[in-house]
Amino acid sequence: MKRIAFTLLVFLSACLSLALAQPAQIQRVNPINWWVGMKNPNLQLLVYGPNAGTLTYTINYAGVKLLKTHTVENPNYAFLDLTIAPTTKAGTIQIVGKRGSQTLTQPFDLKARDKTPKGQGVTSADFIYLIMPDRFANGDPGNDKFPDMLDTEADPKNPYLRHGGDFKGIINRLDYLKDLGVTALWLTPVLDNDETLKKEGPDRNQAGYHGYHFTDHYKIDKRFGGNAGYIELAAALHARGMKLVQDAVYNHISDDHWFFKDKPMKDWVNEWPSYTGSTHKEQSLYDPHGAAADKKTLLDGWFTPFLPDMNQRNPYVANFLIQHAIWSTELFSLDAWRIDTYKYNDLAFMNRCNQALMDEYPKIHLFGESVVNNPVGQAFFVKNTVGFPFKSNQPGGLDFVLYNAFNDALNQRFDWDSGVNRIHQVLAQDDVYADPNKLVTFLENHDTDRYLSVIGDDYDKYKMGVTWLLTTRGIPHWYYGTEILMKGTKNPSDAEVRKDFPGGFPGDKENKFETAGRTDKENAAFQFVRKLATYRRDNPVLHTGKLMQFLPQDGTYVYFRYDGSKTVMVATNTGDKEIGLDTGRFAERMTGFTSARDVLTDAKLTDLKLVKLPAKSALVLELIK
Amino acid sequence: MKRIAFTLLVFLSACLSLALAQPAQIQRVNPINWWVGMKNPNLQLLVYGPNAGTLTYTINYAGVKLLKTHTVENPNYAFLDLTIAPTTKAGTIQIVGKRGSQTLTQPFDLKARDKTPKGQGVTSADFIYLIMPDRFANGDPGNDKFPDMLDTEADPKNPYLRHGGDFKGIINRLDYLKDLGVTALWLTPVLDNDETLKKEGPDRNQAGYHGYHFTDHYKIDKRFGGNAGYIELAAALHARGMKLVQDAVYNHISDDHWFFKDKPMKDWVNEWPSYTGSTHKEQSLYDPHGAAADKKTLLDGWFTPFLPDMNQRNPYVANFLIQHAIWSTELFSLDAWRIDTYKYNDLAFMNRCNQALMDEYPKIHLFGESVVNNPVGQAFFVKNTVGFPFKSNQPGGLDFVLYNAFNDALNQRFDWDSGVNRIHQVLAQDDVYADPNKLVTFLENHDTDRYLSVIGDDYDKYKMGVTWLLTTRGIPHWYYGTEILMKGTKNPSDAEVRKDFPGGFPGDKENKFETAGRTDKENAAFQFVRKLATYRRDNPVLHTGKLMQFLPQDGTYVYFRYDGSKTVMVATNTGDKEIGLDTGRFAERMTGFTSARDVLTDAKLTDLKLVKLPAKSALVLELIK
Repeated sequence: MKRIAFTLLVFLSACLSLALAQPAQIQRVNPINWWVGMKNPNLQLLVYGPNAGTLTYTINYAGVKLLKTHTVENPNYAFLDLTIAPTTKAGTIQIVGKRGSQTLTQPFDLKARDKTPKGQGVTSADFIYLIMPDRFANGDPGNDKFPDMLDTEADPKNPYLRHGGDFKGIINRLDYLKDLGVTALWLTPVLDNDETLKKEGPDRNQAGYHGYHFTDHYKIDKRFGGNAGYIELAAALHARGMKLVQDAVYNHISDDHWFFKDKPMKDWVNEWPSYTGSTHKEQSLYDPHGAAADKKTLLDGWFTPFLPDMNQRNPYVANFLIQHAIWSTELFSLDAWRIDTYKYNDLAFMNRCNQALMDEYPKIHLFGESVVNNPVGQAFFVKNTVGFPFKSNQPGGLDFVLYNAFNDALNQRFDWDSGVNRIHQVLAQDDVYADPNKLVTFLENHDTDRYLSVIGDDYDKYKMGVTWLLTTRGIPHWYYGTEILMKGTKNPSDAEVRKDFPGGFPGDKENKFETAGRTDKENAAFQFVRKLATYRRDNPVLHTGKLMQFLPQDGTYVYFRYDGSKTVMVATNTGDKEIGLDTGRFAERMTGFTSARDVLTDAKLTDLKLVKLPAKSALVLELIK
Repeated sequence: MKRIAFTLLVFLSACLSLALAQPAQIQRVNPINWWVGMKNPNLQLLVYGPNAGTLTYTINYAGVKLLKTHTVENPNYAFLDLTIAPTTKAGTIQIVGKRGSQTLTQPFDLKARDKTPKGQGVTSADFIYLIMPDRFANGDPGNDKFPDMLDTEADPKNPYLRHGGDFKGIINRLDYLKDLGVTALWLTPVLDNDETLKKEGPDRNQAGYHGYHFTDHYKIDKRFGGNAGYIELAAALHARGMKLVQDAVYNHISDDHWFFKDKPMKDWVNEWPSYTGSTHKEQSLYDPHGAAADKKTLLDGWFTPFLPDMNQRNPYVANFLIQHAIWSTELFSLDAWRIDTYKYNDLAFMNRCNQALMDEYPKIHLFGESVVNNPVGQAFFVKNTVGFPFKSNQPGGLDFVLYNAFNDALNQRFDWDSGVNRIHQVLAQDDVYADPNKLVTFLENHDTDRYLSVIGDDYDKYKMGVTWLLTTRGIPHWYYGTEILMKGTKNPSDAEVRKDFPGGFPGDKENKFETAGRTDKENAAFQFVRKLATYRRDNPVLHTGKLMQFLPQDGTYVYFRYDGSKTVMVATNTGDKEIGLDTGRFAERMTGFTSARDVLTDAKLTDLKLVKLPAKSALVLELIK
């Protein structure tokens, strides 16, 4: 035994000597650039290349100090702690690395900050449209696939491969979106997903077309248009007064990520003796009776066998991820972040990361995906009023609790605690949040069955749900194509809810971006959404007006949005029979009003005492004195 | 029109003059006595009788000051504000009322406080047994019915009439209860329910045998044994180291209550233009978007058409109810209060009432019945950590949320959010409560289907649920008869779950209070409950030990209670197949322990690595180092 150990030691030493004998190289510096004039003067550069960790680094640039060089287990990495004084001028730093007679010089740009709008946030005045870029519109068939990438395929006919959608395609449709009433875009992630098709597991033979498998943080995937194309998209949005939301994935990376293939250190990712998946059970985090083992498996377990779990307690990892978030916001002029798999991240890391973004961009909005089943759990992950020992600083979050309630309201029979009572009961618990109006509300997303399929293709239900989404509290988000009645369930796979937008791809026989390409029913739906979305856009009462909801009765649900200047009444009948709604019960919001304008039809109602509510309908009335 | 009004005025004046011409009488003073040495020196006496409000009152007694006499709308009432100085000696006050030549003298006792234990509270060290006194045991057939009461009937064969159970019957069975491991009794209300049988409505032809229809606050129903019998019961309990919990109803009274028949003032109860029932929807109270109209209907709407809703915003009503609570605690040596229909009460009143009790009896426990469907709603009514604008001071509450979870755990298929996951998920939200260990937990009560029927007569399930109740956090309460496998559903009526305890009534063919009267199965159940209840009673680790629960897996649910001296492991398998439980996952609680004692069988387990869990079973293991 001893002899084997000794032999091994000799062998390893030999390997190390051989490695160190090689000249060093610098192949990457991350971030790939930085800016002068950031609020946080600190920057940690990751320097990578063969033996890059064996160099002695110096930087000679006015205002920039190299405080410390960290070497780590893997000699191919060095981490350089810099401070950048507020007075530093923009320019190119030379990072000089020396070892013996070898001297390497690596240029690094410190740019001046541009004045384009960024970090504007999204608020309840916005209407966010979620796009999976590969599946929306292909504006440049020249960038669909590349022979130098690990996955060289693209085929719009194969639901599991890339289809070729890109930024150019989106830019071409921005006027369509603006016309619909959209004010912000959230794209599923656009970072490099340069990975081989998996040969086994749940994603077998599926490309990372959705973008959630990062392989290089500092490259936007060139199949979407690369860094330059993304900057162009942001500019095109901002030119139209629209905003850009990026989708962050802090929790994991692809196993094809360059820095997973040659890890800086053993604990760069969370490793387990044998493969251990996350429990996906967030209760362990907020449970005062929770077990440490369960918390660890939730947080450090892997999301899937090919998505290594980042160790955010490792300070180098934390710095890397936080700086990437800042860098992206600054370079691409992002306005907000949607944060993927929020509940799987280290809580202290998330607070630090959120704070770093809010420090640089005070108006930015951050809203994470925490799939939860109750308001207490949802509150835990955002700024809340509950006495949890851990205090989250996340300003918003995706409102999965209301999403479930919308579904129940549309699909359950009305009863004591069911049907539309579910919406009432969920909103009634809003005191657990610091600000429920910062939650991002939705009817569906790229991971759920499509809305229209969930409600059994019922257009009456469709209109009710859309009305709730666009008139209640929160920041509504939409999923591409629902305005033209796209549908699908996740059977047999997620791809069924991520179909191409018809008209977005070369050779498409139909073009549903245009009136003429849509059926009458699709045009009706489009106009319905457009009517409500633009009314919402133009009426602050639906952004910041107070909400008052009344107890549902007999399947009806009535609420008001109101402020000093306007009162909007939303009256829903979820039942199968017409109801004459006696409005006496709503006097505290209706007294003084004598008539109303039906926002959807522009018809005038002169009798507010008894309001006719057809079966499965929602009325939006602007009250008139 | 004017003429009619004038005629009416003349008539009313005439009536009033006639009334005032009658000599005054004092028929009642409430409270019927008081004590010297209470922390609160103030006392408001309600004086009632024909023209009692037209008298001028004086009191001449050292230490006692009559601060003010309030007259109200009804001349038959006077309210006298007194202060009682700390140095006042016990004795009999003479309340003197004068009008013209008439002088009335009404004695009123100021007693010395006795030293019997009272206000001791119930804690997680207790095991509360809920009895409906009319249905438990008849110790004195002489007090079953009285010809001078509005309902003169009693018939054990009629499920809707009184059966004759009484305090004497309970006292006779205290040794049975103590033997079972019971440490406290909660009786459904024992106040006078002297009312006519209703001729219509949901309670048609049903007596107020359950006690919730108060007709005189200062009389304990003589069919139970009256005030003296109740004092005797308290003494018998305290002599055995057991405690007494009274059931309070602040929200409503019977329409046969003497002071409803001749109300002091119009707003003594909450009146409506036409009958208006409560919405029963507590969401309106904590909903930040709630409507005032909905809150009002919940709170001021009547529980049923024959239960007038007390107006607790009326300061005379509030004083009356609070003083009655203090008086009862002091006279009957109560240890705690269960508070009926808590969510229907005025919130400010409840806080004031709770505080008054806690001021006089700092260790007292108060736990209200708020039927809710989620932890946020439940937290609202007790001391909590949530940022509600209203802060409840109620120390405990009945845990309806965990009750529902117990049911789901026993009856739902195990899935992501269902089956035994429901218990885990509910307890995981305990951070919303100031102290979840002060909640009173249960498997059933007098208003629910009986436990055994809910679980389909499945004795394996029975043992699992009882094990959870008696080993998890909180103060467990039991419902009479479940230890001898009584069952029943509320079909066709509540009476089906309120059957007589066999052996408690003259002529009963079976006596299940005794081993010989029980079947083998009933004896097994009795011994099972007894074993766990006495183990709980004797082991502080199950009172104040920490709880640590692990994520349920494959239908198993494992948790630990532990403190500096003991660790108890509870391992449940809710599935239909035996499971060999690998305990590696529980290392943080099991490391260092090498064997265990099975608390239920006293068997010793020497291998803790793999624990055999039969289908539908719960194991309680005391771990041994």
